[in-house]
Amino acid sequence: MCQLLGMNCNTPTDVTFSFAGFAQRGGRTDHHADGWGIAFFEGAGVRQFVDVEPACSSRLADFVRNYPIQSRNVISHIRKATYGKVMLENCHPFVRELWGRYWVFAHNGDLHGYAPRLHAGFHPVGGTDSEQAFCWLMQELAKSHASLPPIDELTLTLRELAPRIARFGTFNFLLSNGEALWAHATTKLCYIVRQHPFNTAQLADEDLSVDFQQVTTATDRVAVIATTPLTRNETWIPFESGELKVFVDGAVR
Amino acid sequence: MCQLLGMNCNTPTDVTFSFAGFAQRGGRTDHHADGWGIAFFEGAGVRQFVDVEPACSSRLADFVRNYPIQSRNVISHIRKATYGKVMLENCHPFVRELWGRYWVFAHNGDLHGYAPRLHAGFHPVGGTDSEQAFCWLMQELAKSHASLPPIDELTLTLRELAPRIARFGTFNFLLSNGEALWAHATTKLCYIVRQHPFNTAQLADEDLSVDFQQVTTATDRVAVIATTPLTRNETWIPFESGELKVFVDGAVR
Repeated sequence: MCQLLGMNCNTPTDVTFSFAGFAQRGGRTDHHADGWGIAFFEGAGVRQFVDVEPACSSRLADFVRNYPIQSRNVISHIRKATYGKVMLENCHPFVRELWGRYWVFAHNGDLHGYAPRLHAGFHPVGGTDSEQAFCWLMQELAKSHASLPPIDELTLTLRELAPRIARFGTFNFLLSNGEALWAHATTKLCYIVRQHPFNTAQLADEDLSVDFQQVTTATDRVAVIATTPLTRNETWIPFESGELKVFVDGAVR
Repeated sequence: MCQLLGMNCNTPTDVTFSFAGFAQRGGRTDHHADGWGIAFFEGAGVRQFVDVEPACSSRLADFVRNYPIQSRNVISHIRKATYGKVMLENCHPFVRELWGRYWVFAHNGDLHGYAPRLHAGFHPVGGTDSEQAFCWLMQELAKSHASLPPIDELTLTLRELAPRIARFGTFNFLLSNGEALWAHATTKLCYIVRQHPFNTAQLADEDLSVDFQQVTTATDRVAVIATTPLTRNETWIPFESGELKVFVDGAVR
């Protein structure tokens, strides 16, 4: 099993605080030491960092922790290999292009006996069930819409598609096209929306706190989604099983 | 205009020496200061780093220079913007998936009035002529072969396709799927194959030399392809106009 971290904001924000705690779960405070990855949207562009080293000790993760990339949509993943070897091509998040936009996807959970018919333009490069699920989602989105539809239409389509994968097992996932971030839970996912008045948050996995009031303006709004709460002094809202939420501009749509 | 750097080897090799000199052309020894990028294959996986900062001063480029990623196929690019703004989505190299493999592409040159019909599964995310050319190449490869063909067949197809783009202007490009590296020149590209007995090479753009004998074994073979020679004491072989070469295991096929 793996862990997920997502961030969706109304203004470009760095994820260094959340990622600092999250990365500790990659081998130090938790056992997800089989690689990690993070993808940042910057406009329509994407920066993707993937690594087979444990996130807690990877030099690349150290660089990401100390290099505040400003982004409105971020997806990160730390991996505990179950299906698929510890190889770079099996590290999440995965990226594909559809309708002239990049799509970023990361998954937590195991799918059993999942072998979708991939007959169109999306095929997995690695050996994970997760990348198969992503390719199938992309294929079915492409079949459902001729070009990029509005966010609410995409959400409706994803609400139809997600259960068809979830019946094979655990399908907690994060998906973003840089405009919105979709989060689906079957077992474990929670979120928090931070907005004015901001408070001090204290990481659960590392002795680090930040007073968000010092680093934000009154109009900023940031949603953070994670497998389990990243802070110890805030109230995270759990997803219900089967729930798909879409985050836009730092709020639940 | 831009500059290209490629490396193809028979054993995983780090590109730090060549990249150290190449990155200086991104704003210091030359004027290509509108972003840069580099992609490394590791097995079937790809690590892609892109940045809108000048390569000579980018913190990310500094990380790449000092983090020896071992790879058999590397493509790098520094950009002088002509078509398309200085934005992350316009930084080369670009990555797409076809037949369950990643493909990496970077281009040097301007294409005039180039507006290919992109009717299939590959669409540009950014605004460059280069990404349009890449999408068209991917589309036409996908139409020409039902699944991944042998390298020599791909080379034949690319020899047919490249001139159909080159008629619109300057089309120097590097393309790799992790197995082979294709290089096409219309104006400026040169290469060198380093193999036993190895010598000392001295960078043209920075006061740095390396004795390859100290860091290689007798069976290593490395081809480096660049817009202009990266070293001052080696003989680089220029491409002829219209030439497409394919490099496999560090040698010209």
